[in-house]
Amino acid sequence: MILNKNKVLGLAALALLFSMNACKPKNAGSVVSGDAAAQTYVAPGKYDEYYNFVSGGFNGQVSVYGLPSGRLLKLIPVFSVFPENGYGYSEETKPMLNTSHGMIPWDDQHHLDLSQTNGEIDGRWLFANANNTPRVARIDLKTFHTNEIIELPNSAGNHSSPFITENTEYVIAGTRFSVPPDDKNGDVPINSYKKNFKGTISFISVDKTSGNMDIAFQLQCPAVNFDLSHSGKGVSSGWFFFSCYNTEQANTLLEVNASKRDKDFIMAVNWKKAAELIKAGKGRKQAVKYASNRYNEKTQTATSTIKTQVTVLDVKDFPGLVYFIPCPKSPHGCDVDPSGEYIVGSGKLAALVPVFSFSKIQKAIASKAFAGTYDGIPVIKYEAALYGEVKKPGLGPLHTEFDDKGNAYTTMFVSSEIVKWSLKDLKVLDRHPVYYSPGHLMIPGGDTRKPTGKYLVAYNKITKDRFLPTGPELAQSAQLFDISGDKMKLLLDYPTIGEPHYGQAVKASVIRDQSVKFFKIEDNKNPYVSMGEGATKVVREGKKVHVYMTAIRSHLTPDNIEGIKVGDEVYFHVTNIEQDWDVPHGFAIKGAKTAELLILPGETATLKWLPEQAGMYPFYCTDFCSALHQEMSGYARVSPAGSNVPLTFSTGTNMPKETNTVETQNTASN
Amino acid sequence: MILNKNKVLGLAALALLFSMNACKPKNAGSVVSGDAAAQTYVAPGKYDEYYNFVSGGFNGQVSVYGLPSGRLLKLIPVFSVFPENGYGYSEETKPMLNTSHGMIPWDDQHHLDLSQTNGEIDGRWLFANANNTPRVARIDLKTFHTNEIIELPNSAGNHSSPFITENTEYVIAGTRFSVPPDDKNGDVPINSYKKNFKGTISFISVDKTSGNMDIAFQLQCPAVNFDLSHSGKGVSSGWFFFSCYNTEQANTLLEVNASKRDKDFIMAVNWKKAAELIKAGKGRKQAVKYASNRYNEKTQTATSTIKTQVTVLDVKDFPGLVYFIPCPKSPHGCDVDPSGEYIVGSGKLAALVPVFSFSKIQKAIASKAFAGTYDGIPVIKYEAALYGEVKKPGLGPLHTEFDDKGNAYTTMFVSSEIVKWSLKDLKVLDRHPVYYSPGHLMIPGGDTRKPTGKYLVAYNKITKDRFLPTGPELAQSAQLFDISGDKMKLLLDYPTIGEPHYGQAVKASVIRDQSVKFFKIEDNKNPYVSMGEGATKVVREGKKVHVYMTAIRSHLTPDNIEGIKVGDEVYFHVTNIEQDWDVPHGFAIKGAKTAELLILPGETATLKWLPEQAGMYPFYCTDFCSALHQEMSGYARVSPAGSNVPLTFSTGTNMPKETNTVETQNTASN
Repeated sequence: MILNKNKVLGLAALALLFSMNACKPKNAGSVVSGDAAAQTYVAPGKYDEYYNFVSGGFNGQVSVYGLPSGRLLKLIPVFSVFPENGYGYSEETKPMLNTSHGMIPWDDQHHLDLSQTNGEIDGRWLFANANNTPRVARIDLKTFHTNEIIELPNSAGNHSSPFITENTEYVIAGTRFSVPPDDKNGDVPINSYKKNFKGTISFISVDKTSGNMDIAFQLQCPAVNFDLSHSGKGVSSGWFFFSCYNTEQANTLLEVNASKRDKDFIMAVNWKKAAELIKAGKGRKQAVKYASNRYNEKTQTATSTIKTQVTVLDVKDFPGLVYFIPCPKSPHGCDVDPSGEYIVGSGKLAALVPVFSFSKIQKAIASKAFAGTYDGIPVIKYEAALYGEVKKPGLGPLHTEFDDKGNAYTTMFVSSEIVKWSLKDLKVLDRHPVYYSPGHLMIPGGDTRKPTGKYLVAYNKITKDRFLPTGPELAQSAQLFDISGDKMKLLLDYPTIGEPHYGQAVKASVIRDQSVKFFKIEDNKNPYVSMGEGATKVVREGKKVHVYMTAIRSHLTPDNIEGIKVGDEVYFHVTNIEQDWDVPHGFAIKGAKTAELLILPGETATLKWLPEQAGMYPFYCTDFCSALHQEMSGYARVSPAGSNVPLTFSTGTNMPKETNTVETQNTASN
Repeated sequence: MILNKNKVLGLAALALLFSMNACKPKNAGSVVSGDAAAQTYVAPGKYDEYYNFVSGGFNGQVSVYGLPSGRLLKLIPVFSVFPENGYGYSEETKPMLNTSHGMIPWDDQHHLDLSQTNGEIDGRWLFANANNTPRVARIDLKTFHTNEIIELPNSAGNHSSPFITENTEYVIAGTRFSVPPDDKNGDVPINSYKKNFKGTISFISVDKTSGNMDIAFQLQCPAVNFDLSHSGKGVSSGWFFFSCYNTEQANTLLEVNASKRDKDFIMAVNWKKAAELIKAGKGRKQAVKYASNRYNEKTQTATSTIKTQVTVLDVKDFPGLVYFIPCPKSPHGCDVDPSGEYIVGSGKLAALVPVFSFSKIQKAIASKAFAGTYDGIPVIKYEAALYGEVKKPGLGPLHTEFDDKGNAYTTMFVSSEIVKWSLKDLKVLDRHPVYYSPGHLMIPGGDTRKPTGKYLVAYNKITKDRFLPTGPELAQSAQLFDISGDKMKLLLDYPTIGEPHYGQAVKASVIRDQSVKFFKIEDNKNPYVSMGEGATKVVREGKKVHVYMTAIRSHLTPDNIEGIKVGDEVYFHVTNIEQDWDVPHGFAIKGAKTAELLILPGETATLKWLPEQAGMYPFYCTDFCSALHQEMSGYARVSPAGSNVPLTFSTGTNMPKETNTVETQNTASN
């Protein structure tokens, strides 16, 4: 049997070679200076300097690391169910994962953007994308809780997302895969791509106070693949830039057919003009379906609404809205420097990194320095937009971020290194190997108007021998560099959860002090809250049995429940009535086809249970909460359907008699 | 509205106080010496000294940390679905989570035991328990893959589990909650506990070669709560020891009613005698239902079998099998020293730690030094079994492990400290505060015949202010100590995933070199494997559509599929035909109500998709695998039910013509 006989143009083999090369760095040992230990050590009781929010990639969640320790502080459930705390399983959180396709338990979380005011990170919200079933989430940084998820119609592979404007006016999301628009017949031949497929960019508005998102409008664009994007800032305020690949508009064997052209595009969008057009009533109302899921902090319950319309601007109908800039070759990263003047397009198959000038782009537009059109969109002449090229940067440039000293840092996937270069003269200043094959890199504030210049993290795609082996499946590897000096210094390797696709970081002080410690019970407006043990009860409504339960060290009330019947729908509404930091309680019942609940102080969460067999079902607190945690348990008795066992329960004020029908002979002297 | 008015004897308030006290250690700053940084720093390219396997508690999984770095090397999915790699979602792994109650997506993973030969860790398997729906898993340490899960009948809250015998003859699992046996009517009044409920201990045999588990027999015991256990070793070989609480046999408000007696029990079981009885045909065949789920490494597919019978020994019918030893008060940990002579029972409500002597126990049995019986079981006199008491150890003793120098280390939950004491004279030698409220502690090999004496990790239940705050929900905290000197030295705090309930650690060399790097494709006997791109195909069988797909950098074959209809069941059988380490590929398709697949080299995994709407569905590789990873994608076209679009697909050798029905005007010069 012959394997791996790829006969197609040898390009697959080339890609393979690229990847293989990445695993043979010249300097595999990497000498680090002795004080790296001291630089990365955070002593017991001390705090990290930075919060580092890292996308989870194929785990669908967001990780929070501390820098410089590289310690994983938290995993925030966003797009995937999270058995650990019941996210996606509790009745309150299930609606968060609803889509126009129904409930989806997973997604692929690639990029993050921290909310900004005046181009600086303001610590209010974190936006996160889902690639597979296109969605954007908003996480509240007071609670580290996913408070909103909005689905994106007309999209597929929501990769160029979520990147925000300087004052968080919009979260912008570009589709990776062009598809037939949702109101057209999608049941078309795949090879009618050029005729029937379109690329869509979504502009999601963000309410200044609540953070609530809505799709303000969408831009219908030529069918290409949008890969990454960044907002203009400073001088380029009001513009947005997207990298585009597959300008060949191929629909099969993309590794070959989407790699033919020497240059693809950066797409420049005048988003302020788009917003004005929408305000002026332009655009087409399109019938679509998309879910808008919001978590209400008062009722502690998410609701999912299916919305049915979006306004679309077809960019070719609005001159001055969109321009293409040729960019070599299959551009991936699209990064804007702190001043907003320079736009860096990193062509993963290019041997140089072009830097475009916003002022030159504006002049080119004014003077109509166009090379032609592409699907009706003006294409600016390459030289007319170019500030200059970083020569011989390395192989496979992917992403660039910036420090506070006028330097840029670009990852080289194929040659496995980070290359530091000067924005001023585009000269390469330093290069450092990484282990292995970096995707994104991250400098705190490195894509904002105010980058810092202390740390850089490389998120590497290949791990191999960097840590103790754990079988065929390995954690991915991050590497922390000190970039405060002229030369980059490698400080630390640390493994990461999921696929740490991209990250953003912010000084701890921006977030630390606003962090909510617990929820005030008097603010709890969950309709099923029990405001104390005396308020607990069990109520039957037809087949539905509602158990209003409290959890407090070290007791679940009620802890004996009888009269549940096979065929009932039992809802355990568990309120944690603690009012102190870090006293969660958990709830689980044997045999339930769901996860546990983890209930934070002041919170109510609901577990739905469909008992299928008569019997005795213990339940208990799953989070070790006190010296008597093991005693925090109870029993639910399930009787056959039609049984006449009455609904009864025991609470602290309503203790059943212990009618020990048979006394065992207990004669021990203890 | 009045909250938290617990009127019951004030004991709940006492427990609350206990917990609160834990958060006010005297020495909150904890000065650590300057070289702690150097001691815990693992330089880039260097390896940790120890693998530390840590139970995930309420996340249901097992974590693998490196020591001394505290880095999380891997999260092994065991009892909970794992969207990150498709565990519990792929057709191959779904059966692993089957139970007699059906598929359960979550559990609560509390204890771990590494397989042993002659009382030493042999690096073959790791056993893990599930509390909520009682199960035991076996993880293969060559692949770090969960290869087997067995359900336990007659059990509920499988807490005293999985603890193994010295040569891994048995994995032993004691029920935490007594329940009516599975073949009795479980629909009984809860307050008939003393009459109808029983405690069950399961003895799971382990095949010496394959590791395959089976329930060898069960012991039916008096209705109490079994909390923890450990095997005898050396002089106590052939015996097993369990801590029992709720010897009051209460069924409600356990914090009060199960805390009444000054002494509960350690239960001593002569398991070699039990095995002989079974061999001699003793015991009752009991009709039960339990799932036995095994992953076949050849077919790469799990199967779940529901078994229907177990052999039960009622311990009161077999004199000499089981003895109770009084133990103050509500014992939690039950730990056996390296020699096997000393059994430490840690009563969480006791003000001392009793140490029992195996030889004295044997003498007491021989001389019938009994205080009476408990449910027909002899109760040995406390003094007759006692070696001595550790006086004033601290408040809330929970767990003890041992070093290689004759010392024991016990966690004090309430007084938040670790106390080191001498096995020789039971004198306290050292105490160190921990932050906060430790549950288990762990010394590599610390519950085997060959402990090491370098590191100790405390797994703490309360975190509060130890790390940058992350809202109300915090990671739990672990603390690494150097125990090589006379005094314990705190080296490092690190946050942990889930609830790191217990851990075991082993020198890296025991596991490192056996770690499988990838699966040989020629060994892949998955019935749906594609042994190369040329073998890919799409086959319709009625409503079922089987897509035989390959993944290799940078192509999915086939990448265009048409002729799928609404109402079909589509199975994507994706084979990763790479043959190199750390080249996984992923697979996801828009809108699927499942997770992704993560497919390791040489592996086949299957995603089931039920398309509900006609349209165009992109799919792609989710794991960034090469410079052309973004091109590794394709489209599936879904037509309405009854449509006559034929089933077609494109592969490298079967490319569809690109019939561009309308040529767009592309005049750009690039």
